[in-house]
Amino acid sequence: MAVPPTSADRRAPGQALYALMAELYPICRSITGAGLRETLRRLARHIPLRLHEVPSGTPVLDWTVPDEWNIRDAYVKDSRGERVIDFQRHNLHVLNYSVPVRARLSLAELRPHLYTLPEHPDWIPYRTSYYQPAWGFCLSHTQFLALPDDTYEVCIDATLEPGALTYGECYLPGETEAEVLISCHVCHPSLCNDNLSGVVVATHLARHLADAPRRYSYRFLFIPGTIGSITWLALNEAQLGRIRHGLVLTGIGDPGPFTYKASRRGDAEIDQAAAHVLKQSGRPHARQAFSPYGYDERQYCSPGFNLPVGCLMRTPFGQYPQYHTSADDLSFVQPEALGDSLAVCLELVEVLEHNRRFLNHYPKGEPQLGRRGLYGSIGGQSDAKTHQLALLWVLNLSDGAHTLLDIAERAGLPFGVIRIAAERLAQAGLLREPEEA
Amino acid sequence: MAVPPTSADRRAPGQALYALMAELYPICRSITGAGLRETLRRLARHIPLRLHEVPSGTPVLDWTVPDEWNIRDAYVKDSRGERVIDFQRHNLHVLNYSVPVRARLSLAELRPHLYTLPEHPDWIPYRTSYYQPAWGFCLSHTQFLALPDDTYEVCIDATLEPGALTYGECYLPGETEAEVLISCHVCHPSLCNDNLSGVVVATHLARHLADAPRRYSYRFLFIPGTIGSITWLALNEAQLGRIRHGLVLTGIGDPGPFTYKASRRGDAEIDQAAAHVLKQSGRPHARQAFSPYGYDERQYCSPGFNLPVGCLMRTPFGQYPQYHTSADDLSFVQPEALGDSLAVCLELVEVLEHNRRFLNHYPKGEPQLGRRGLYGSIGGQSDAKTHQLALLWVLNLSDGAHTLLDIAERAGLPFGVIRIAAERLAQAGLLREPEEA
Amino acid sequence: MAVPPTSADRRAPGQALYALMAELYPICRSITGAGLRETLRRLARHIPLRLHEVPSGTPVLDWTVPDEWNIRDAYVKDSRGERVIDFQRHNLHVLNYSVPVRARLSLAELRPHLYTLPEHPDWIPYRTSYYQPAWGFCLSHTQFLALPDDTYEVCIDATLEPGALTYGECYLPGETEAEVLISCHVCHPSLCNDNLSGVVVATHLARHLADAPRRYSYRFLFIPGTIGSITWLALNEAQLGRIRHGLVLTGIGDPGPFTYKASRRGDAEIDQAAAHVLKQSGRPHARQAFSPYGYDERQYCSPGFNLPVGCLMRTPFGQYPQYHTSADDLSFVQPEALGDSLAVCLELVEVLEHNRRFLNHYPKGEPQLGRRGLYGSIGGQSDAKTHQLALLWVLNLSDGAHTLLDIAERAGLPFGVIRIAAERLAQAGLLREPEEA
Repeated sequence: MAVPPTSADRRAPGQALYALMAELYPICRSITGAGLRETLRRLARHIPLRLHEVPSGTPVLDWTVPDEWNIRDAYVKDSRGERVIDFQRHNLHVLNYSVPVRARLSLAELRPHLYTLPEHPDWIPYRTSYYQPAWGFCLSHTQFLALPDDTYEVCIDATLEPGALTYGECYLPGETEAEVLISCHVCHPSLCNDNLSGVVVATHLARHLADAPRRYSYRFLFIPGTIGSITWLALNEAQLGRIRHGLVLTGIGDPGPFTYKASRRGDAEIDQAAAHVLKQSGRPHARQAFSPYGYDERQYCSPGFNLPVGCLMRTPFGQYPQYHTSADDLSFVQPEALGDSLAVCLELVEVLEHNRRFLNHYPKGEPQLGRRGLYGSIGGQSDAKTHQLALLWVLNLSDGAHTLLDIAERAGLPFGVIRIAAERLAQAGLLREPEEA
Repeated sequence: MAVPPTSADRRAPGQALYALMAELYPICRSITGAGLRETLRRLARHIPLRLHEVPSGTPVLDWTVPDEWNIRDAYVKDSRGERVIDFQRHNLHVLNYSVPVRARLSLAELRPHLYTLPEHPDWIPYRTSYYQPAWGFCLSHTQFLALPDDTYEVCIDATLEPGALTYGECYLPGETEAEVLISCHVCHPSLCNDNLSGVVVATHLARHLADAPRRYSYRFLFIPGTIGSITWLALNEAQLGRIRHGLVLTGIGDPGPFTYKASRRGDAEIDQAAAHVLKQSGRPHARQAFSPYGYDERQYCSPGFNLPVGCLMRTPFGQYPQYHTSADDLSFVQPEALGDSLAVCLELVEVLEHNRRFLNHYPKGEPQLGRRGLYGSIGGQSDAKTHQLALLWVLNLSDGAHTLLDIAERAGLPFGVIRIAAERLAQAGLLREPEEA
Repeated sequence: MAVPPTSADRRAPGQALYALMAELYPICRSITGAGLRETLRRLARHIPLRLHEVPSGTPVLDWTVPDEWNIRDAYVKDSRGERVIDFQRHNLHVLNYSVPVRARLSLAELRPHLYTLPEHPDWIPYRTSYYQPAWGFCLSHTQFLALPDDTYEVCIDATLEPGALTYGECYLPGETEAEVLISCHVCHPSLCNDNLSGVVVATHLARHLADAPRRYSYRFLFIPGTIGSITWLALNEAQLGRIRHGLVLTGIGDPGPFTYKASRRGDAEIDQAAAHVLKQSGRPHARQAFSPYGYDERQYCSPGFNLPVGCLMRTPFGQYPQYHTSADDLSFVQPEALGDSLAVCLELVEVLEHNRRFLNHYPKGEPQLGRRGLYGSIGGQSDAKTHQLALLWVLNLSDGAHTLLDIAERAGLPFGVIRIAAERLAQAGLLREPEEA
């Protein structure tokens, strides 16, 4: 556990994740509409995913579910009838949620509707206007500069009408109703790291967990950003008390080191577990304190809910130039990075699943381990001392106040080593679980 | 707020402070007597200052108000009748609170009564003997070495008789009886940084506040050091509960960086506010933990009172060689430094005045800012993100547990930015004040 | 107190400690038996030591007192009748607690019973088998390699039979029943740093304390490791509440810097006092957090007892190559180191003895020190300021919440200076002890 898997090990699981991403990449998603629905249907081939449709106009907390947006085609044609900007070529070319438009405009009239990135002249920016009616096109700055003074035919063949907001929910019941919430946004069109990376890692994590014994129940949410979590929270407020731990997955396909952003509480078990897993694994990583800017953790961690939800990323959003541009494509994301992100999620789940509190049955003095075959009897010569030490740490700190994760942190040993020690001590009758646990 | 005013900006207010200091400099002050009274009368031309006279012999806490000291003249004449040490030339020449004396002495007899600073041979030291009857003269070491063996005529034409201890009090009532206490000592004769600097900054701070709306009431004390604060505390013990914040101003005219010495509590709001203002302003500064050595904060922070009173200085006393010598004169203190010290005090008051606790009306999820015109609508392009972030921080942390200053610290943003965000959110009906506030 | 004694100062007390160690070195000790008993009898010549005999088979916590082991002779003879391994030459040659054996064996048959240290080919390792019946010999690797293929006569003339476990207890009653526990293990044969160093320092510490006034009662335990502390705890459980502070002394004769391992509580007064003494003395030192691996602090700090017992060492066990080998002999331990270790123990006791909580009689404002002759009246010119400051610190923090040690730490002054200040203030009637103290 202390050594990250080698590049070769990671490739195999990573390839399956990457393949799913490649399949989903061309779909034009938004916070509502056919592309979002189609994406969720494809995920449902891999995991037991239930699609929910929430009608436009539904009040959700301080918000209202918006009209549904669907787009068939969009272009800007020059006077020769040639498509100089073409939605069919790249769905980022359209300002996401553009109202329908058909018009003939001069370049001067068109310009206020064009978005470019002068500092990255070959990339198409990603822009949206969900809540302010607007239309527009995004294009590379190079292409923009080459537009001649001309009369242009503009067409956005879209609809913005009452319909529904769609989200997917995969619930895996466990031994208890206590829940782990895994959330990712699924509203971005052809963008890979933000956030198909989260989508495919969450999907494969759910696949793994579906086949595993589970102490906790697991709830995976595939939702449009902001309005999706607001909607889900509004509809499920009565059940939020079940959430013991939560994680937003986003931007975890790039090759950068991991970044864990803590929950608003800052000292939740998920915060402690993520810090432990990343540190003990030896992976380079950073910890961010909670801030109210970011992804759906903003909603989960709003003060009225204050759920123990953190956020796992690699390079934080906005800190890589490809963010929200056409350069966040299949070449930016790496199969190895996806596979390793899944591995971290699995290690984290392992900690959550097995983190308990025990009571030492013989708290006065050390119990005689030799008599019970627990002395120097595990593993190779070099491991023996570590396992011995783990037994002593678990005995010394199993006083009702410390979890196994607390003990692992205090001992500076991997959680897995402490967990094995606790299991062996419990088998030998030296530990018991407290009444209430 | 993040950038300190330029040297030119500071000069204007600084000149007025400096002029007042120059006016007060020649007066021979002590812990009682005519010089102290005259100084307070001159301050009363600028601010509504009430003079209090406390009779000699009045018991105050563990102390007793001493006899009043007044001095008219003092000199040492050589056998030719020439004044070789002359109080008329510099009032530091006399040991402050010297008992009256008239005598003819040999140099050998005179020597035990002479004080010099061999390490700064051209400076006159400042010495006092308030509570042990004594007389003496202070002179430069150079002058001392030049004294020939001669018979000297010594005269200290002073009186030490029952009278009163005088102090000045300027009370500016605010919306509430909760008070901010500003204290400075005013007992030093011709010394500028210690402590005419505190006297003139406090006076001008009171002038500014007299014309401003005030949530808090403000009480300015101009008192003789130690015995003055002891006396005031003794006479006002029943009202001390009103003091919410306090500040001793001293040694703030030299060009050194600011030093804030925390209150005994260490985590009082004044401590937090001073740290915030100095850090956010970008001014170089240092923080000192409380220690029981220093100025009148010793009395305010004695364990039986333990008031939330800090101390704002520039170079701490004893850390500049001019301290308590004739070199602490008008050339040592700078108008710009005085002006900037006043500016810091005003910024600090601004934080205290506006630091409140709000409750987010919509604590579940983020309220929709766009609908209320709060999204990306403030300031220039570069400021917009900061103001946006400030809105989110205020919403996220306005849970009743955090003040605006707490939020500013947590967000790493200037208090002023957080305050504006809170005001805009309150105007939009998103925040309210808790019942009790 | 701020300057460690010079090498010459330390030698005198160190020589007496070293001489006692040299006397005890040749004795073959174990966790029971004649060598242990003989060692304790010799210590009883120096201090009032009571020997306790606990019969084999006595249940003690989760353990049972083992049979008593005694050894008269042991050897391996080659076919020419020559002793190639000889217990008479070095008692480490026998696996401690070996069962009796008499046999003729080939080299191949003998080998599994031989222990060497290939990485230190000239040293004899120290091995034990207290709770698994076994026999064996320890020898240098060089000697082992030189053993020819031969038939060997093996003899361990030992007995392992019902008897008793012996330990020594020296109790020095003080003004109160509140106790300081000093514990060292005394079960190692010819090994000096581990742990004759602890034995001789504890003995001399007891000698010093026997002649001194004592606020606390002191209990010195000279016990076999692990089973000894388990036994003592089992037999004295009802009285453990008296233990206010405790210290395990071990490995304090080598020339390395001090290491203080904190109690499981981590913030016990003994932890604070040890940190203070080592820091203020200027001695190089390190602090270790508690871990459940080490000496008898493992038992005292087991969660059911959780006594405030730390451990004072120099180089931690296992971090010097001589540890548990014949190289841990009289040449490895230094008289100066022993003497300085005793000095640290005495300084630590001094802090514990005089650490109290006072209440300032005049908590409102500073009391007038000058009137009481407490102003500038102590020590030389350079010390005066420190003593003055100490008076002010004690007055300011004697609010019932701070001990003198807390005040010393907060003031950054040596405990001794704070203690003197408190005594002078108490004499002047300015401090009193709280009711309950």
